[in-house]
Amino acid sequence: MFVTENLLVIVTFISAVVALLFALLMANKVLKFSEGTDLMKKISASIRKGANAYLKRQYSIVLVFFACMFVVLCVMAAFGLLTWFVPFAFLTGGFFSGLSGFVGMKIATLSNARTANACRTGLNQGLRVAFSAGSVMGFTVVGLGLLDISAWFMILKFIFKLDAAAISSAMLTFGMGASSMALFARVGGGIFTKAADVGADLVGKVEAGIPEDDPRNPAVIADNVGDNVGDVAGMGADLYESYVGSVISASALGIAAFGGDIKAMLLPMLMAAVGILCSIFGTFLVRTKEGASQKNLLRALSRGTNFSAILIAIVAFPLVWFLLGKENIGLYIAVISGLIGGVLIGQSTELFTSDSYKPTRKLASNSETGSATIIIGGLSLGMLSTALPILIIAVCILVAYFVSGGAAETGLGLYGIALAAVGMLSTLGITLATDAYGPVADNAGGIAEMAGLDPEVRQRTDALDSLGNTTAATGKGFAIGSAALTALALMASYIDKVNSIEGGAAKLSNLSLMNPTVLIGLFIGACLPFVFAALTMESVGKAAQSVVVEVRRQFKEIKGLMSGEADPDYASCVDLCTRSSLHEMILPTIVAILVPVLVGLILGCAGVVGMLAGATASGFLMAIFMSNSGGAWDNAKKYIESGAHGGKGSDQHKAAVVGDTVGDPFKDTSGPSINILIKLLSMVSIVFAALVVNFSIF
Amino acid sequence: MFVTENLLVIVTFISAVVALLFALLMANKVLKFSEGTDLMKKISASIRKGANAYLKRQYSIVLVFFACMFVVLCVMAAFGLLTWFVPFAFLTGGFFSGLSGFVGMKIATLSNARTANACRTGLNQGLRVAFSAGSVMGFTVVGLGLLDISAWFMILKFIFKLDAAAISSAMLTFGMGASSMALFARVGGGIFTKAADVGADLVGKVEAGIPEDDPRNPAVIADNVGDNVGDVAGMGADLYESYVGSVISASALGIAAFGGDIKAMLLPMLMAAVGILCSIFGTFLVRTKEGASQKNLLRALSRGTNFSAILIAIVAFPLVWFLLGKENIGLYIAVISGLIGGVLIGQSTELFTSDSYKPTRKLASNSETGSATIIIGGLSLGMLSTALPILIIAVCILVAYFVSGGAAETGLGLYGIALAAVGMLSTLGITLATDAYGPVADNAGGIAEMAGLDPEVRQRTDALDSLGNTTAATGKGFAIGSAALTALALMASYIDKVNSIEGGAAKLSNLSLMNPTVLIGLFIGACLPFVFAALTMESVGKAAQSVVVEVRRQFKEIKGLMSGEADPDYASCVDLCTRSSLHEMILPTIVAILVPVLVGLILGCAGVVGMLAGATASGFLMAIFMSNSGGAWDNAKKYIESGAHGGKGSDQHKAAVVGDTVGDPFKDTSGPSINILIKLLSMVSIVFAALVVNFSIF
Repeated sequence: MFVTENLLVIVTFISAVVALLFALLMANKVLKFSEGTDLMKKISASIRKGANAYLKRQYSIVLVFFACMFVVLCVMAAFGLLTWFVPFAFLTGGFFSGLSGFVGMKIATLSNARTANACRTGLNQGLRVAFSAGSVMGFTVVGLGLLDISAWFMILKFIFKLDAAAISSAMLTFGMGASSMALFARVGGGIFTKAADVGADLVGKVEAGIPEDDPRNPAVIADNVGDNVGDVAGMGADLYESYVGSVISASALGIAAFGGDIKAMLLPMLMAAVGILCSIFGTFLVRTKEGASQKNLLRALSRGTNFSAILIAIVAFPLVWFLLGKENIGLYIAVISGLIGGVLIGQSTELFTSDSYKPTRKLASNSETGSATIIIGGLSLGMLSTALPILIIAVCILVAYFVSGGAAETGLGLYGIALAAVGMLSTLGITLATDAYGPVADNAGGIAEMAGLDPEVRQRTDALDSLGNTTAATGKGFAIGSAALTALALMASYIDKVNSIEGGAAKLSNLSLMNPTVLIGLFIGACLPFVFAALTMESVGKAAQSVVVEVRRQFKEIKGLMSGEADPDYASCVDLCTRSSLHEMILPTIVAILVPVLVGLILGCAGVVGMLAGATASGFLMAIFMSNSGGAWDNAKKYIESGAHGGKGSDQHKAAVVGDTVGDPFKDTSGPSINILIKLLSMVSIVFAALVVNFSIF
Repeated sequence: MFVTENLLVIVTFISAVVALLFALLMANKVLKFSEGTDLMKKISASIRKGANAYLKRQYSIVLVFFACMFVVLCVMAAFGLLTWFVPFAFLTGGFFSGLSGFVGMKIATLSNARTANACRTGLNQGLRVAFSAGSVMGFTVVGLGLLDISAWFMILKFIFKLDAAAISSAMLTFGMGASSMALFARVGGGIFTKAADVGADLVGKVEAGIPEDDPRNPAVIADNVGDNVGDVAGMGADLYESYVGSVISASALGIAAFGGDIKAMLLPMLMAAVGILCSIFGTFLVRTKEGASQKNLLRALSRGTNFSAILIAIVAFPLVWFLLGKENIGLYIAVISGLIGGVLIGQSTELFTSDSYKPTRKLASNSETGSATIIIGGLSLGMLSTALPILIIAVCILVAYFVSGGAAETGLGLYGIALAAVGMLSTLGITLATDAYGPVADNAGGIAEMAGLDPEVRQRTDALDSLGNTTAATGKGFAIGSAALTALALMASYIDKVNSIEGGAAKLSNLSLMNPTVLIGLFIGACLPFVFAALTMESVGKAAQSVVVEVRRQFKEIKGLMSGEADPDYASCVDLCTRSSLHEMILPTIVAILVPVLVGLILGCAGVVGMLAGATASGFLMAIFMSNSGGAWDNAKKYIESGAHGGKGSDQHKAAVVGDTVGDPFKDTSGPSINILIKLLSMVSIVFAALVVNFSIF
């Protein structure tokens, strides 16, 4: 069996390499397309330049943070509160997470003009370029994620000869690196993109009365840069973290449930490997005939993801059977429940945010009585939309727990919940590809507008973009659902970790809800997503207001700007967004890292468990509420722009624009950041567990 | 000792009667004032008529609900799942809660014109009338509450000769009646008042460009009726429920902690009795010189409440010592921690919502960049404002638990938490008086406007009204804080209840957060306030839109309305609000009653505990978030109206009006209803505990 296990690890490693090679192949394919006219090249170059400059500065700030944390972790290791692997694992997690974002951003900025140019030929051509670019991102994320996991596994096992429990414990800590990086990327990028967007819209559309993406708007390049640094680089780092988090937490719980049997640790890794291969097959099915309708396009994308999902469902069965024996085949059902749960949450998101369904249409009709009623309507839509996902995730947890043998209290049930998260994310390669192509199409539309291409081209990019909104909704469902399950799995890992520390078990003797430290932890944890959402929204507001001031200044001071005779100073807006978003991303991240340590030191380990449960529950709700409200406002506005309720330029449209502007930080900054927050809280708690066990008051 | 105990119960009963007599005295005092001119009388009469008609129809619907529930409870009693006291206790709780609302509404509608007329004489005179009216409401609520409690106590003890445990168990169930009634009153009244307000504003202020309270606006009477049925009758029923809930849950936990010693049950009742007497003394200090500034007015009110609070703090010490001995004097600290916690939460509310402080001023400055940024700013302000109250309540719980002897696991700690809630609400007589006078002053302003009184009069009523906003903020702090503590106490009572049922203890063997049924319960519970807020907000939106349509119709069809030559049809708007709000209040209430039973039957008692904890945590957060966002928007608008950022009529003002409109259902419908929701969930769980223990799946 020794050979088999080592072989399986190598299979995992090879799958990771295959994913990266596939990404390289796709990148080459994209780069063969032409960037189009000189003007298009120029615009694309300025977007690229802005995005590069942003990432460079962001990473240099993040570097300082990582250096500080590295020192802290080393000190803790020196005092015997951590193993010496932890500081280094922390660094690699952060590095790969950042790299995922960087690669995604790079390819996205290289393919926006190419997509616009391909749309001059036709819709199918445009889809191919954009989807290939998305695939680069998707497979880079899963490839790097699995590479990091399998490489560490091999180093710890073959070089340091650690046993399974020690390996899984060390690996949990690079999750903290990945989560920290992801939070920086999501929050910083999210603030950048929405500050630029809101700032550009407020002055451009509302005050100056020029259309979206008009080259006369000084913030228009910043807006396009934002799509790349927020929606692409931020999302890349974010999903890298989700992916890695789900696999390592499942591995750790597997080890606990199977008493150190390394096969339980390999199962989630192999699930991920299988997922990569199935996703690659799926991508070949994404193609459509020329002249295809939007419905056909969507069908092409769904065909790819559905095929991958079914393939995984088939392959997972022998995998579980072979690795853990038929007596544990219940774990297969757990995987499937996650896979199905993710799809269902995605569908519920679509139901509430797509203008094909009643909720968003009703929201659009709220515009008839002005902006106040569309705001009230959107907020209540978002709050109401939390009910269905909560029920889905509840059933998912219940099924995963009990089919896996949870009633026997062997830890199998918790392993089942973690495997459900892995199942949910197993198709990430292809779902992320369909997700990441959205911002590329969005950028392509911007370039088509700015370069003055044929209106037909813009129509095609719009068709791609609007499709991107639907797939993004599904993608968000996966991200939120998997975040909740992973957070629960990490909570269980935290308990295992504390129990493994001397004196730790006594600290966890009473996890009952009637223990006031648990209850208070629960209250504080539930409060964190509210505070976090507030901080990030306020940051967007602040940054947007500075953009507004700058854009107004340019309109006033640069003569001939409105008539098109003079060029605006794009770079100053990009620079402004960069500075303010980087400045604003620091506080929320520090809150997320300090609070679990403080709660631990004051309320003890039981308080931390309460905090994690509270943050997971309220974070899940807030993330869904904010994402869905934002998505519905966006689509209600688009629905009105398509001619309903007075169409573009009507009072109803103006009301809808207000809704959309409020929704921007909701859906693209605060909402998605909360997903990372709830996992980072657990990761930090795990890393600082020994400190808390030794020095806490309660 | 037998004599002493009986004597103490009688003291409680007498205090209740004293409160009611004092209320009667105050009512007589108010009625001696003149209602002013014929026009004022006429306007006041139409408001009264509308409010009466509303309450009559509301109560007739509620009657059907109570009849159905009575039958259900009788059936359960017939099957031995409840004692036969329960159905009747349920009815009295509902009856007295409704009566509190009715009396408050009655006196408020009788004193609005009197207050306006008194303001013609001077500010002090106006304050006296309005505050006396508020006192009627305040002391009716506490009087009826304590009357219900002490009367049932005497009946059960002297007539049915029950022991302490059986008495406390039976008494918990009239809490459910009070909570159900309160929820109907809050939700129905809240929808009515905000639908009328939003509807009147949207067409009147925004479209027709006429000022607030202009008699030409067809919805203006409905708006004034709304203040009475929502802010007065709704609040009366609500606080009746809080008051009763805190006392009976503390009584039940006292019995559990002291092994059936009836003195532990008497302590909260006597605290309430002492609170009434101290509050009466406090009211005599509320007076001010003629020509007093707004600051003096506020000082006059604070003097009254502070004096009462200090008096209670002094008297509580010998009370605890005498009843439970010096070894339990820690419970005194618990009472005080509640008293102080309530004040601090009130102050944090003021900090975030008063335009004297930075947050609301900053929010007002957000109006410079339009309605979207003021909405984003208000939402983030509200979310951020949850942090301080969470910390205050956390410290409150921790202190109350451990000083009372929580570490010894005797149940004393939980009793301490419940006593903190009683302490927080002990000054309710006078805090409610300062709270309830707000809507009276608001109405008086409306009447002054409609009756064309001297602008000076309107200025005076405005001064009273604005003061009312500050005291209302403090009052909300008490309501929310006490709701959270009471909900926790009721959660503990639920556990005691289940443990007392045969087979119940086994169902509660694992209340750990790692039990998936607890976790899922937590998720579902946390979701309920979101769903509830969504349903109530949507209802306001729906009802407001129907008002908008009707007002527009009248402006179009009634000739000479705008020129003042023809009268609008006020009654049709009142009728419309009545019908839609009563229709809309049913679904949320049914959700609140059905969900705990369903969760119990599916997830079992452990799931119910999880649900209660989740609902309490997220409900507390949502209630604060929504109340504070709403309050801050309201005051930011008023701040702008006072001349800042362009003043009345500017674009900034328009943006602020949008914020205020969104804030209306936030702060006056959804936010306060959530307070009741979290307690009703526990009450329902307690009443249906036997059903769940016998028939649940898990």
